[in-house]
Amino acid sequence: MDKILRVNMTDLTTKLETVPTEWAGLGGRGLTSTIVAAEVPADCHPLGPNNKLVFAPGLLTGTAAANSGRLSAGAKSPLTGGIKESNAGGTAAQMLARLGIKALIIEGLPKADKWYNLHVNKDGVTIQEETELLGKGNFAVIEDLEARLGKKTGVLTIGPAGELKMTAANISVKDPDSKIRSHGRGGLGAVMGSKKIKYISIDDAGAPGIKIADPEKFKVAARTFAKALLDHPVSGEGLPTYGTNVLVNILNEAGGLPTRNFTVGQFEAHDKISGETMHDTIVARGGKPKHGCHAGCIIQCSQVYNDKDGKYVTSGFEYETIWGLGADCCIDNLDDIARADNLMDDIGIDSIETAVMFGVAMEAGILPFGDSKEMLRLLTEEIGKGTPLGRILGGGAGSVGKAYGVTRVPVVKNQGIPAYDPRSVKGIGITYATSTMGADHTSGYTIATNILNVGGYVDPLKKDGQVELSRNLQIATAAVDSTGMCIFIAFPALDIPECLPALIDMINARFGINLTGDDVTNLGKHILKVEHQFNIEAGFTNKHDRLPEFFKTEPVAPHNAVWDFTDAEIDEFWNF
Amino acid sequence: MDKILRVNMTDLTTKLETVPTEWAGLGGRGLTSTIVAAEVPADCHPLGPNNKLVFAPGLLTGTAAANSGRLSAGAKSPLTGGIKESNAGGTAAQMLARLGIKALIIEGLPKADKWYNLHVNKDGVTIQEETELLGKGNFAVIEDLEARLGKKTGVLTIGPAGELKMTAANISVKDPDSKIRSHGRGGLGAVMGSKKIKYISIDDAGAPGIKIADPEKFKVAARTFAKALLDHPVSGEGLPTYGTNVLVNILNEAGGLPTRNFTVGQFEAHDKISGETMHDTIVARGGKPKHGCHAGCIIQCSQVYNDKDGKYVTSGFEYETIWGLGADCCIDNLDDIARADNLMDDIGIDSIETAVMFGVAMEAGILPFGDSKEMLRLLTEEIGKGTPLGRILGGGAGSVGKAYGVTRVPVVKNQGIPAYDPRSVKGIGITYATSTMGADHTSGYTIATNILNVGGYVDPLKKDGQVELSRNLQIATAAVDSTGMCIFIAFPALDIPECLPALIDMINARFGINLTGDDVTNLGKHILKVEHQFNIEAGFTNKHDRLPEFFKTEPVAPHNAVWDFTDAEIDEFWNF
Repeated sequence: MDKILRVNMTDLTTKLETVPTEWAGLGGRGLTSTIVAAEVPADCHPLGPNNKLVFAPGLLTGTAAANSGRLSAGAKSPLTGGIKESNAGGTAAQMLARLGIKALIIEGLPKADKWYNLHVNKDGVTIQEETELLGKGNFAVIEDLEARLGKKTGVLTIGPAGELKMTAANISVKDPDSKIRSHGRGGLGAVMGSKKIKYISIDDAGAPGIKIADPEKFKVAARTFAKALLDHPVSGEGLPTYGTNVLVNILNEAGGLPTRNFTVGQFEAHDKISGETMHDTIVARGGKPKHGCHAGCIIQCSQVYNDKDGKYVTSGFEYETIWGLGADCCIDNLDDIARADNLMDDIGIDSIETAVMFGVAMEAGILPFGDSKEMLRLLTEEIGKGTPLGRILGGGAGSVGKAYGVTRVPVVKNQGIPAYDPRSVKGIGITYATSTMGADHTSGYTIATNILNVGGYVDPLKKDGQVELSRNLQIATAAVDSTGMCIFIAFPALDIPECLPALIDMINARFGINLTGDDVTNLGKHILKVEHQFNIEAGFTNKHDRLPEFFKTEPVAPHNAVWDFTDAEIDEFWNF
Repeated sequence: MDKILRVNMTDLTTKLETVPTEWAGLGGRGLTSTIVAAEVPADCHPLGPNNKLVFAPGLLTGTAAANSGRLSAGAKSPLTGGIKESNAGGTAAQMLARLGIKALIIEGLPKADKWYNLHVNKDGVTIQEETELLGKGNFAVIEDLEARLGKKTGVLTIGPAGELKMTAANISVKDPDSKIRSHGRGGLGAVMGSKKIKYISIDDAGAPGIKIADPEKFKVAARTFAKALLDHPVSGEGLPTYGTNVLVNILNEAGGLPTRNFTVGQFEAHDKISGETMHDTIVARGGKPKHGCHAGCIIQCSQVYNDKDGKYVTSGFEYETIWGLGADCCIDNLDDIARADNLMDDIGIDSIETAVMFGVAMEAGILPFGDSKEMLRLLTEEIGKGTPLGRILGGGAGSVGKAYGVTRVPVVKNQGIPAYDPRSVKGIGITYATSTMGADHTSGYTIATNILNVGGYVDPLKKDGQVELSRNLQIATAAVDSTGMCIFIAFPALDIPECLPALIDMINARFGINLTGDDVTNLGKHILKVEHQFNIEAGFTNKHDRLPEFFKTEPVAPHNAVWDFTDAEIDEFWNF
């Protein structure tokens, strides 16, 4: 029987609750957003006693469905001030799902000035005082917990950034190789830090596991679904070979690779940081070009990146991070970027927000463009140690912009704009502007259709069709984010007719229900509306569904494109 | 003939314009807010090329009317993100008025990385490159300009804080004794800094002066008005004797003196920082207990505060500053507070925002409560020098709260809450919540009626009548702020029947018009609505007309009062 675990940090009590009927059909983002909207006052301080941190595996998580192992984390975001869902791979989602835990809700703030850890197992959740691992990086936490609790222990942890309540702090999730995946965006690590929880360990021994209502139907659908993933050129070939970093050269070619804090759309040294170069480097150094963030992943877009001596540096080394520290900061040294990626994992800070932030910090003159040594020093010595400068940087791009009076700050709702210039890839600009999450490429990844010709083609330089494209993708993504599926299943879902029905069949077979495609679309719409309403109650209006001023006034080479949507055109997004 | 001076910093040109008909009846706040609303896109970056900095003397400024020498400065605020008007004494207002300058509008941003100064005289305004005085404190700027341009030169200047575009930076105005008055609130110094203008010097030689349409009527009204000011116990006796700092003991007695970052409403050491103690100290040390911020002031609430050796320390030493560094930071040494006041004038940073900020910084653990030595060091070595910590502190209370994850941050619309606890003086809470300026006691000073029994009495601990009180005062204040009058004329205006008609008579006699009391009220309403509409377009909603969460949940001693207005009750404010 699925259950809700509730942890109250104010009186240090825990509760095991039955799942309310209205939450029964929800999982992942659908569930975290529903709980946050229902239980968190929209006007509360994100780091105060009234915010709640919610973890929820997806509807299919824990089953044999390919790529279904994502965990959603939700709260009111200290970065944006709005609702936040951020999902990650790693082992925790499947362990929680097998334990029958539909959601873990953490509320309140400790009265005493003490830190704690949580331990989840088949009997529920317990709270212990924590002293030993305070101040430690995430890798040390994982190492220590594996030594004490066994190699298989699940771990959700925050690094120094989260302890310091930096608004770019993330929550790290141990992956199958004891490396790190992240609930990266929106400062959820600061929320966990405000509740003074250093880590959550998970033991799924004796877990009841997942009951499938119609195992035969499930098996057939799962096979069709997996085949679609493997058959699609992006999920079956591009991503497994080059990782997400396949996009550097593609975006550079498209003139949409934001460079030098979004002043131009192409990076001269793109070849030095491209997915192709990275692949060859990995292979030459004995790393792994393919690697999954969770059991059951058949895309394997992650990798193991080694240094010259064949020593491990990082994994989960994503395009957005490489773009940000690379093109946007004009750093052409992939080894330094990899080292930074590892440091960010260890410190526990969002690598997208931090990369965008460094671009702004360079424009502010805090360090020169291209200075990777100083960038690494700032990560370890300032952000990692929580110096005053580290706190400014750890607050993300908006924080640096405010502290240094910078006007060219690429953020929406105070969240850094990732990796795709909205002037020359206009669909993603609509997503950045309107997403309930702040600037978030994953919330409606129009790059698929604007650039990769997936799901048809919408000219990235024209306004026509972009609002509709972003709307359809945002609706679909909200639903997909509720299943526990990786967002990359969208590629086959958009192109291969059998894929989406197979996904729905798996859900139906899992729960013994009869959802239609329309039901799934309606779920996506419902989630967006719940999130939007929360944001309205938190003080957001359509005036916040806007890109920063400079995108409207500064043409970006090579297309000399500007952001030219009228307010009324953007506001069309919410007409559904 | 009155004129508008327009300075374009982008192409370094100036223009002399005739006054548009619709601006003819406006002055001070009415004019700055009208110009900002008409010409500044509400969604622009406050430090970007599309913001404008507007100075306007009041309708009566430059005449012989008592206390009419205030200058309004307006822009989109980099602190609040909304519209801002901040008015100050000093000599500039009367000089501009006598020169027939109805408004000085500064727009654009220089293309080159150079700094400039402006010089205003009877022929208009000129732009010169500035190198010598960069980085200098405001006192050095005034000294240098007086040496070069003569003792009578008018000066508007920014200190290091404004050059660094800190969002708590103010604009300093030279007063008749070459000391400093400030356009304190909302970070207007950062706007001037963004336009790379270090100072504006004014020479009124050959000024046409003010033409009074009906000199005899003006004279009679001016006499009646001045008599009312002198007859009222607050403006005629309390303020001249003790300055605004007369309020320390009064608010302490009322339990509304926010202490230790708003945790209690009374300060044990109130006697050490009170107006009475200050008065005796000033007299004993050969300072001046009375001092005017501009020629024609007959209230003389300022003072000259000397140190033990009789050496000048500061003037314009206000209650809100002394409350903030005193009670709110638990500093009981008036000499240290005076020294800080002088430093803030020199650095060019708002003494209210900075005082509130220090309370939050102490709660964050940046320095201990009561540590005045460290407070002085932070002002000179960190804020004054623009170190990373200085930039966090120079961003005001909200900035420190964000960087250090503090939840008890007394701000509304990101502007620090001054000097009067809204839980135990509820009328002022309505003003803080609803003011278009962010938390601003001067925008609707209900303390008059809640505490000082001026204009009747409304029990400060009850909700009844507070919204109406705040509404009436905010409407009246918006009108008064347009006349160039000091806000303290409100005391006699509320109690002495002849006062307000005399004020209106002066305006009518000055311009040869026939305004009624209703016209003046309608002007106040109109100004508030123009400002409110700007804020709505900038993204504010009624959700921003709220006090921080902790006022609702933490009862404050001695009355154990909480902020208990419902949202709907607060929103009643805008029903006019």
